[in-house]
Amino acid sequence: MVFTSKLIEKSVDAFASLPGIGRKTALRLVLHLLKQDKAATEQFTAALTAMREGIRSCQICHNLSDTDTCQVCSDRRRDHSLVCVVENVRDLMAIEDTNQYRGLYHVLGGIISPIEGVGPGDLNIETLIQRLQKGEVREVIMAISPTIEGETTIYYLSKKLQPMGVRCSTIARGVSFGGDLEYADELTLGRSIVTRVPYSGSGADNENG
Amino acid sequence: MVFTSKLIEKSVDAFASLPGIGRKTALRLVLHLLKQDKAATEQFTAALTAMREGIRSCQICHNLSDTDTCQVCSDRRRDHSLVCVVENVRDLMAIEDTNQYRGLYHVLGGIISPIEGVGPGDLNIETLIQRLQKGEVREVIMAISPTIEGETTIYYLSKKLQPMGVRCSTIARGVSFGGDLEYADELTLGRSIVTRVPYSGSGADNENG
Repeated sequence: MVFTSKLIEKSVDAFASLPGIGRKTALRLVLHLLKQDKAATEQFTAALTAMREGIRSCQICHNLSDTDTCQVCSDRRRDHSLVCVVENVRDLMAIEDTNQYRGLYHVLGGIISPIEGVGPGDLNIETLIQRLQKGEVREVIMAISPTIEGETTIYYLSKKLQPMGVRCSTIARGVSFGGDLEYADELTLGRSIVTRVPYSGSGADNENG
Repeated sequence: MVFTSKLIEKSVDAFASLPGIGRKTALRLVLHLLKQDKAATEQFTAALTAMREGIRSCQICHNLSDTDTCQVCSDRRRDHSLVCVVENVRDLMAIEDTNQYRGLYHVLGGIISPIEGVGPGDLNIETLIQRLQKGEVREVIMAISPTIEGETTIYYLSKKLQPMGVRCSTIARGVSFGGDLEYADELTLGRSIVTRVPYSGSGADNENG
């Protein structure tokens, strides 16, 4: 791509450095900003600057937060005896989006992966244990992706947490709602038969953690 | 999408205000910036700010430029007797990318479109006529999209320019290189037969403007 302006080239490079944005898309975004008035670009960069400067890690759950303690942890209406362990903030947001969970979270910041050199010491596990030692937490839900690394992390966590007298659970696995049995993978379908649940007649089919 | 941070929400909104970026993609971009160190975001916003502040319209051809006269117009090695009229900067860049054109440009800033209320007075036509009155320009190439609005603009321009003794040409139209005849649209294929060119044996098959 030939640029007749260095300023445009640098902005295109800046956008193209973001994941999933190629140089053609970057150019379209830059030309869009140039079509708007200056205030639009100022607003755009101000939002990013304010975020990058102001954002911090919640001192309790390591969620991204505007304040020292995040919105979730400081919400007294939520169930503080329930902690959901997630790999990252995106998973936390996915669970929040379901509107089905009213407990707290704990963001690990990754999962145990020997191949990528991530050990338990690199994750926020020590702070989770400190939280549990306060005795307020009754149950820990491990909402971690069902991959090999995820299962390893779940196994490691359960070994650490169970001696503390805390109930450990994982999110339910099985065939997706609306999914066709025919297209479910063998492992999921096989496990969903082995871990079948009594039919309750209502929509909620599994009350056990 | 539920956000536990206002700062993140504002940044996601900022990204999502750009064309072709939805809120899920915006969130991915924001989380990417948060994973990098602060300098990455600073560099990103600085590039955009510098561009939006510094960019101007070339006083000769209306190309986007870092200086009062753009890189193309101030390049004395280019052919200043040839002016290519384009609709917008993106079309100019597309032609530059071909590396086949060594003349100058003139950016109209749109095309005549009665439906959208764009008349000849809204385009950079007056400045084009002033350029031609200096007598330096020998030929004007109208590289405008072959739509109804484009054809109208070409017709209007040719009526204005021909009395000035300037040669007017349009870019060649026909079946794309590498394109299958079977899939060419009827209008293009039909016109390409009517406006057939003598076979020259070499790659360059049409020397007439």
